[in-house]
Amino acid sequence: MARPSKPKLSTTAIADAALTLVDAHGEFTLPQLAKALSVTASSLYNHVEGKAEIIELMRGRAMSEIQLPDLDRVDWQEAVRQIAMEYWASYAKHPRLIPLFTSHTVRDQTTLRVYDALAEAFAVAGFEPKERLQAITIIDSFVLGSALDATAPRAVWEADTQSSHAFTEALAAGLQEPNRAEQTFFHGLTFILRGLTGKQKKADS
Amino acid sequence: MARPSKPKLSTTAIADAALTLVDAHGEFTLPQLAKALSVTASSLYNHVEGKAEIIELMRGRAMSEIQLPDLDRVDWQEAVRQIAMEYWASYAKHPRLIPLFTSHTVRDQTTLRVYDALAEAFAVAGFEPKERLQAITIIDSFVLGSALDATAPRAVWEADTQSSHAFTEALAAGLQEPNRAEQTFFHGLTFILRGLTGKQKKADS
Repeated sequence: MARPSKPKLSTTAIADAALTLVDAHGEFTLPQLAKALSVTASSLYNHVEGKAEIIELMRGRAMSEIQLPDLDRVDWQEAVRQIAMEYWASYAKHPRLIPLFTSHTVRDQTTLRVYDALAEAFAVAGFEPKERLQAITIIDSFVLGSALDATAPRAVWEADTQSSHAFTEALAAGLQEPNRAEQTFFHGLTFILRGLTGKQKKADS
Repeated sequence: MARPSKPKLSTTAIADAALTLVDAHGEFTLPQLAKALSVTASSLYNHVEGKAEIIELMRGRAMSEIQLPDLDRVDWQEAVRQIAMEYWASYAKHPRLIPLFTSHTVRDQTTLRVYDALAEAFAVAGFEPKERLQAITIIDSFVLGSALDATAPRAVWEADTQSSHAFTEALAAGLQEPNRAEQTFFHGLTFILRGLTGKQKKADS
């Protein structure tokens, strides 16, 4: 009788196992990862150099479903909106990865292609290089913060007896709204895109 | 000779020890916390009911330095800007707390007072309750995402050979800028405030 074959260790399997650990515990270590994959730490090192590389693999897995828009077919605002919304949906699935990702330099190729596309959209819009980086970062920060909001409990806040009328009234009116997080993200993104468009117009004049 | 006195266990000491653990490891457990404080888990329970309460205590510690503006002295945009900037500075010190905070209902009194003030500022601006909650959430998400950006390594991205010219040019122009994160946050906040002001004007007409 043939022995059951062991699933082949791959960078994909390593990234998926690390994602599962971070989703559950907010962190991962190489010994934990080796244990989860039923391999020795040294066999991990046949595939990856260390933790920083695994973080980049996880980033690639998290970003792998993003479809990039064709800048010949849609205007720059629509391109940025599409990327931001797909990016938001990807991160909302893995909120505990967010601080791990933001604390490491982005080197993953799949992720870099998303930023290439954003940079191209802002270049088409006429933004100077420095303003382009600023625009990318503003979108990035809003997406990440909103992805965290998307994973919040339905009762984001619970008012107490000292709460202002202005606040309790707002909670009563808005907290149970279906698609609250998505709608809010969409509104904020619209404000930011309008602000960026205003900046572009100023540069044109 | 008197025995050296043990520091008295308090909710403040518990919150500070938990903050230290999360800053270092992204997470804390009650046994780890008891060990860090050199007490038994049961003595922790004399002060707190459990993990959820400790998270609220940490939230209060993280927010304790925020000064609330006087709405009789500054206009609502300036009030929101001041709160957002202080909030950003507080969270930028503890990035790994952010997903822990966003995954739990806000019940801490110090934190609720900050949201009361935001809600009052938006009420003064004439926002309806539901729009008020949306405005609060947009500010909140942008602050949290930008606080994560503030703790990123100086090389946020590292271009590769396939990177677009639009992106590499942007990185070269903006990445080494002193106060990059703070300036970017300030710009994005201005866009959002302008968007909110536009919404207010529309409501007035």
